[in-house]
Amino acid sequence: MSQLADKAKGDKLVGEVLAGSIRTASRLISRAEACDSSITPILKQLFCKAGDPVLLGITGPPGAGKSTLVNQLIQHYRKHDKCVAVLAVDPSSPFSGGAILGDRVRMNQHAADPGVFIRSMASRGQLGGLAKATGDALSILQAMNFDVIILETVGVGQSEVEIVRHASSVLVLQMPGAGDGVQSVKAGILEIGDIYAVNKSDLPGADKLVTSLREMLQLSSKMHPWLPPVVAIQANTGAGIDRLVQHIGEHRDSIRSGGEVHASRARERVRYRVVEICRQLLNESVFSGAGVTDTQLSAIANHQQDPYTLAEKLVGVL
Amino acid sequence: MSQLADKAKGDKLVGEVLAGSIRTASRLISRAEACDSSITPILKQLFCKAGDPVLLGITGPPGAGKSTLVNQLIQHYRKHDKCVAVLAVDPSSPFSGGAILGDRVRMNQHAADPGVFIRSMASRGQLGGLAKATGDALSILQAMNFDVIILETVGVGQSEVEIVRHASSVLVLQMPGAGDGVQSVKAGILEIGDIYAVNKSDLPGADKLVTSLREMLQLSSKMHPWLPPVVAIQANTGAGIDRLVQHIGEHRDSIRSGGEVHASRARERVRYRVVEICRQLLNESVFSGAGVTDTQLSAIANHQQDPYTLAEKLVGVL
Repeated sequence: MSQLADKAKGDKLVGEVLAGSIRTASRLISRAEACDSSITPILKQLFCKAGDPVLLGITGPPGAGKSTLVNQLIQHYRKHDKCVAVLAVDPSSPFSGGAILGDRVRMNQHAADPGVFIRSMASRGQLGGLAKATGDALSILQAMNFDVIILETVGVGQSEVEIVRHASSVLVLQMPGAGDGVQSVKAGILEIGDIYAVNKSDLPGADKLVTSLREMLQLSSKMHPWLPPVVAIQANTGAGIDRLVQHIGEHRDSIRSGGEVHASRARERVRYRVVEICRQLLNESVFSGAGVTDTQLSAIANHQQDPYTLAEKLVGVL
Repeated sequence: MSQLADKAKGDKLVGEVLAGSIRTASRLISRAEACDSSITPILKQLFCKAGDPVLLGITGPPGAGKSTLVNQLIQHYRKHDKCVAVLAVDPSSPFSGGAILGDRVRMNQHAADPGVFIRSMASRGQLGGLAKATGDALSILQAMNFDVIILETVGVGQSEVEIVRHASSVLVLQMPGAGDGVQSVKAGILEIGDIYAVNKSDLPGADKLVTSLREMLQLSSKMHPWLPPVVAIQANTGAGIDRLVQHIGEHRDSIRSGGEVHASRARERVRYRVVEICRQLLNESVFSGAGVTDTQLSAIANHQQDPYTLAEKLVGVL
């Protein structure tokens, strides 16, 4: 009886999201952020109702101008009557509160525009839950009527790469550094981007950075059907944004036209997402005490038993 | 037959680590770093042979002086004839290569001293594998004859907090910022530290930061039997290091004297570690294709099926 009532309530929320309710979507995202697993039946339904928006991830080092770029993209897409959702995820919390502040500034700017939805997420629940929650939030937004969803990650490093992998097109933003162009490009970023933008293209070193990136990408992606373009932009003036948007569209067309490389990357994203959901499920069972007793944990804490054997049992390998 | 040979080889490696072979330990850590699961039987054995070294985690924002502090601690412990291992973990790779460089510099300084072992780790294998690999490396080092193991994390944010949680005593390093002392302390760091050090105590704002930290810690840990001390230090001159080491010893004594809070934190650490090992096992099965077929993944990529149901099946919830 109560299960039926839950189902009716869940169906109602699903209907509201599909009808475009920002309020319901926002509440569900908060529940995902708090690792509330009771929304799983809702997420399952919404996932299978996903539309086909542009799903663009933006990453890059702090100070590269990600927020400014996102603002330019919003303005560009709004001029063409596209609805835009922005999910700003900050995996570097608890040490920084950057996302929240940047979010508020932009919220004000677009507050009167119903075609723009901006939402920030940071780690509030258990450690490691943010990547899973980002996937949940994207499922919710994809079931709404947005034409473009931008996933902006704030912070540096591995967590950021994990977050941005949820997007089907990844834009890596760079800026000319103090030193040599080549040295300022780290090896890892050449593997994650579909499109590269060099911001602050009026600064010295920008041309050299563009050239270096192009050369390195040509070397590293020789087998790829999509050679990531490198675009020089000035996010503060809007210079280069039109060309950037054109490349975003071309990458989307390339994905749509099929091809095994794109399909294989899509499967990779699913794999990654499934593992994140599994991890969350394990977190719940291990931390709620359902899967593991205090006695078992103490025996491991005292090095009488090992954690590997217990993990193998939990995952069903043993 | 081959299994027996593997077992004999594994037993030999276990024996070498227990006998203190830096070379074997170093090779095993490399295999852990590369997510090589064939060393699991060895790790199981080593885990149950752990000694009882001081296991100190050090974290703090970039530029706070973590490496300089670690160097001072090495010198201090060496003066008292203690053997020291340092594991410097950089979760912020692929965007930075800091750990490797810092490591080399220090390597040279202590290269001639057989009582010091310094090793850096960065993310080289699959995403998310670094926390698990750090646990593996600590299991290896704990089975050796080190008196002190220092786990230094380089980088910022959530990944760093995940890494440092492996340590039984966590030292949070801070330095006076440009602005107000109170504002420069983020909420999250008050929860993770057992000991706080304010470096560059000669800079303006240091006293205020020490006072603010003390006040905030008193408010936040009222139910705790251990009130985290706050020590002003100058890592470059060594001022305050003696007192810091004294506090590290006192925290260790407090852990040894038992008490439910410490035991509960130890169980929490084990929980966290078990989940990380599970995640790695799932990664292996999901990414090797053993657990999931391409057809299933494509169906999810096309939103015909949802990833939640598949994850539930994999973890055995369904």
